[in-house]
Amino acid sequence: MATTELKKPLRGIVPPMVTPLLDRDTLDVEGLERLVEHILAGGVHGLFILGTTGEAPSLGYRLRRDAIDRVCRQVAGRVPVLVGITDTAFVESVGIARHAADAGAQGVVLAPPYYFPAGQAELLEYLQHLVPELPVPVFLYNMPSLTKLNFEPPTVRAAADIPGVAGLKDSSANMIYFHQLQGLFRDRPDFSLLVGPEELLGETLLLGGHGGVSGGANVWPRLYVALYEAARARDLDRVAALHERIMRISSTIYSVGRYGSSFLKGVKCSLSLKGICSDFLAEPFHRFRQEERESIRKHIDALESEP
Amino acid sequence: MATTELKKPLRGIVPPMVTPLLDRDTLDVEGLERLVEHILAGGVHGLFILGTTGEAPSLGYRLRRDAIDRVCRQVAGRVPVLVGITDTAFVESVGIARHAADAGAQGVVLAPPYYFPAGQAELLEYLQHLVPELPVPVFLYNMPSLTKLNFEPPTVRAAADIPGVAGLKDSSANMIYFHQLQGLFRDRPDFSLLVGPEELLGETLLLGGHGGVSGGANVWPRLYVALYEAARARDLDRVAALHERIMRISSTIYSVGRYGSSFLKGVKCSLSLKGICSDFLAEPFHRFRQEERESIRKHIDALESEP
Amino acid sequence: MATTELKKPLRGIVPPMVTPLLDRDTLDVEGLERLVEHILAGGVHGLFILGTTGEAPSLGYRLRRDAIDRVCRQVAGRVPVLVGITDTAFVESVGIARHAADAGAQGVVLAPPYYFPAGQAELLEYLQHLVPELPVPVFLYNMPSLTKLNFEPPTVRAAADIPGVAGLKDSSANMIYFHQLQGLFRDRPDFSLLVGPEELLGETLLLGGHGGVSGGANVWPRLYVALYEAARARDLDRVAALHERIMRISSTIYSVGRYGSSFLKGVKCSLSLKGICSDFLAEPFHRFRQEERESIRKHIDALESEP
Amino acid sequence: MATTELKKPLRGIVPPMVTPLLDRDTLDVEGLERLVEHILAGGVHGLFILGTTGEAPSLGYRLRRDAIDRVCRQVAGRVPVLVGITDTAFVESVGIARHAADAGAQGVVLAPPYYFPAGQAELLEYLQHLVPELPVPVFLYNMPSLTKLNFEPPTVRAAADIPGVAGLKDSSANMIYFHQLQGLFRDRPDFSLLVGPEELLGETLLLGGHGGVSGGANVWPRLYVALYEAARARDLDRVAALHERIMRISSTIYSVGRYGSSFLKGVKCSLSLKGICSDFLAEPFHRFRQEERESIRKHIDALESEP
Repeated sequence: MATTELKKPLRGIVPPMVTPLLDRDTLDVEGLERLVEHILAGGVHGLFILGTTGEAPSLGYRLRRDAIDRVCRQVAGRVPVLVGITDTAFVESVGIARHAADAGAQGVVLAPPYYFPAGQAELLEYLQHLVPELPVPVFLYNMPSLTKLNFEPPTVRAAADIPGVAGLKDSSANMIYFHQLQGLFRDRPDFSLLVGPEELLGETLLLGGHGGVSGGANVWPRLYVALYEAARARDLDRVAALHERIMRISSTIYSVGRYGSSFLKGVKCSLSLKGICSDFLAEPFHRFRQEERESIRKHIDALESEP
Repeated sequence: MATTELKKPLRGIVPPMVTPLLDRDTLDVEGLERLVEHILAGGVHGLFILGTTGEAPSLGYRLRRDAIDRVCRQVAGRVPVLVGITDTAFVESVGIARHAADAGAQGVVLAPPYYFPAGQAELLEYLQHLVPELPVPVFLYNMPSLTKLNFEPPTVRAAADIPGVAGLKDSSANMIYFHQLQGLFRDRPDFSLLVGPEELLGETLLLGGHGGVSGGANVWPRLYVALYEAARARDLDRVAALHERIMRISSTIYSVGRYGSSFLKGVKCSLSLKGICSDFLAEPFHRFRQEERESIRKHIDALESEP
Repeated sequence: MATTELKKPLRGIVPPMVTPLLDRDTLDVEGLERLVEHILAGGVHGLFILGTTGEAPSLGYRLRRDAIDRVCRQVAGRVPVLVGITDTAFVESVGIARHAADAGAQGVVLAPPYYFPAGQAELLEYLQHLVPELPVPVFLYNMPSLTKLNFEPPTVRAAADIPGVAGLKDSSANMIYFHQLQGLFRDRPDFSLLVGPEELLGETLLLGGHGGVSGGANVWPRLYVALYEAARARDLDRVAALHERIMRISSTIYSVGRYGSSFLKGVKCSLSLKGICSDFLAEPFHRFRQEERESIRKHIDALESEP
Repeated sequence: MATTELKKPLRGIVPPMVTPLLDRDTLDVEGLERLVEHILAGGVHGLFILGTTGEAPSLGYRLRRDAIDRVCRQVAGRVPVLVGITDTAFVESVGIARHAADAGAQGVVLAPPYYFPAGQAELLEYLQHLVPELPVPVFLYNMPSLTKLNFEPPTVRAAADIPGVAGLKDSSANMIYFHQLQGLFRDRPDFSLLVGPEELLGETLLLGGHGGVSGGANVWPRLYVALYEAARARDLDRVAALHERIMRISSTIYSVGRYGSSFLKGVKCSLSLKGICSDFLAEPFHRFRQEERESIRKHIDALESEP
């Protein structure tokens, strides 16, 4: 296994890969292979599997381990692979992390345990117990809408002193929070601050954030990489134009049906329409029906015919 | 294994048993045995393991299976054993349910998958897929504060038509909701409606509910059984007196420290002080420190010295 | 003006009267007169005007003063009149309270200022400043869903020591909270604890609460008074039967259209159908349209044809 | 009265002025005059009085009218004056708007009625009734944390077709929402999109927003104007530097005491320390105590000694 040293800070576009499925307990193995190659061909800077977009909590452990093995083997060190290890049970998080490290993953990603909401002191103590058990660096994952718990800025700052904590991915959609973290980490340029929602990628990069975990990069990886590069080049007009393009994706592809899960359904449906992988979703969700699929098809046609 | 037929509707006091632990991945086996006998000696009508009070989401799967085996073996059909199978992953819920049935459990208890909040139509579809896979009857578990999702009354009414759905335990603490369900199930006297929070047990029983899943019955099982019997006897004064006693437990034992987890810590600490089992809690929680333990001791002394 | 001494504690059914309107700034004066007589004929123990059900926050101050004058004059001491004085501005609350006292009202009702959510210490300080300015006793009004602020039990207990604070009306729909307050006020039998949602009136009265501020008593005042009397007589079967009847009202009359405002629309529509007063609602709400009105008519017919 | 034509779209920095008070019902008239001059000297593009920062909901109507008269007279057309008319009562909103127009205000600002949360259809209907009654253009004000109601993007787009609706100020702190609105209004370059939280001013201006309603501009108006100008000049480095400066204000001046009201207290305390106006706050808030005041003083010293 080729090893890829994880750069500090991790920068760039790290797509949260969907998990292609044939049914609730079977990987779409061929789709998975095509998807990995499709994303890597876009020039991304890492790959994050088994996160929220990867439906990890909805997948059985056997299947998760299978996905880790296959992705790590296929990526083969071309970019760093990060693996989601979020779990309500401490011992299961550790188990997945060890499996990921053995398979060659360069890092893991951890949201708080999401059944019982811990207090901030308990959350810090949890990290102090857990992180030393992890064989690879860990990125914290702030996802309050699903975990019922915010990583308060002082908690993040304290957690960053635990050896092995390499950064934070923020999916709160709260840019005030993100800027507060940037302020707290001005003395820690090695600590990676990544944004989840791609609608906020433009401003994140313009104002000093390190990158994004952009779900749309499953489908159009080059677009997000282009935005990253435009921001690095300080090309404000190009950032604005690419940001608008992402907003059009968001207001079309991710808005069909107005489900809580429209984003996930829209991404998987788009990948299916493009012939990359299956659009099966694990319970409690289900794939788009024919009418919604037609909407997605029209939106893709419109988006891809734009200059 | 002696078999206990599950009565329809299930009635009475079904304590949600705590899971005695020596550390995060080790059962307190002797404590578990003492606890089962302590609870059963109180005359309870069933035993519910691996629920919220049982910290199930915080426990590894190996330990959960061990707990199921030991409890079923020890109870040996004296009362029905219900096993929590709530999981974010469909296949893991099925796996635990099969293990529970094989071990002799009479039923299982299921809250919605709690990472991704499903819509009501998705929730019903999830149940339509899952319940036929379960080898024993299932009780739905409404716990919106932790699952971010309410079982809306029409969803419950529709789910009750799936063969195998035997009742619902409501931990919403919303008695309007509970009364709405009672109205919807007036034509289904076999469908069990149980209340979670013991502070609401008195009114639940006075107004036609079938029973309670009362956490305090880990420590004082006879008290909750006495309330159940007083309500069956229509002895309003005695119900009021026992309800007040439960409110005193709630405002003392469950209110030390004002944590989100004070209830759980208070119950485990009380059991430890009474010599029944360890008070270790799995991450992200931790047991009470010495000062809080002293408070609990004083509260127990005061409560038990009352007439 | 006949004066009615306010009993301590205030007990019984105190309907929160709707405000009959011809348009957004004009009272339905004749409807108001009929409504007052209709309610009083039901044997209620008080009348609460300009609360949430009275749409007070949606009404201009001139109209509110007009309503106070007319109701106090018409009731003429037959029962105590309570007037809602909740306002975001301290000086406006005091102004309405003085007007109410001058008109002959026996008490006022106050929820926290509802734009800026105060902390508990600020809330207590606010009451310590405001209550001494009020010329008549005040009932606190816990309505967290609309004020974004809960009267925490210790705050209520401390506020009860301010001379003039006579009780609390709880519309949180959280019976655990209500029972906690009952526990805190066991030494203060003069402090009135009233429940808002009528779906919880049965259990409130069975377990020691003093009464209810039941919106349905605008339409069917005798029903709520009958439940109060059945509970006083410890007639558990009759309480359960009347409670079920109220639940049927709730699941029909208050559930048409599934608006946030369905309760208010249902009550006003019912009064209109019974020829008592207009069903006009102030912005931001509007009366039921014809189809919904037909639903209400059918529900009323079904309810009133029951034995 | 000199008249200032309201430009379309309104652009730039429009500070939400605090209301200087001597006590809960008395304006600090001299402080008010100094404050207006202080802000205008900073080169701002408008002045917004009686908003959230202006504590309008906590102030009596007499005082609000007095404030409108004084500010309009003093500004005397140098910049447009916008007046908050948000009210739970339709007729009171209209009354304040007429008073403001008579006094010479160029526009009004309206959040939804904030006691009863309307549905989106009701909110649109409310605007369709209200806006034609207003004598000057109106800016919608999205403030979901305090009104419990979000102006959904389709509602805003529909409302923008009512003659007189000139723009929207968004205080949701949700930049995804803001970008969605920008997308919907690409064909309406006259419709002003302003951001509330100053922590988001940098990105708002870089990505096409028209300006900000920045509370800190009460104290340091030039800073916010400088950020606006740097963004107009596409000077990304300077925007980033000024944004960081604002973040330092936010994490110091607005974070003392960690109250919900820390922002408001910090701004008024800063103005008091700088000798501009009183720091009295209307109920339910109160000014900082001595210790907190000392913290603010130190923070100001540190901020103002930076290069």
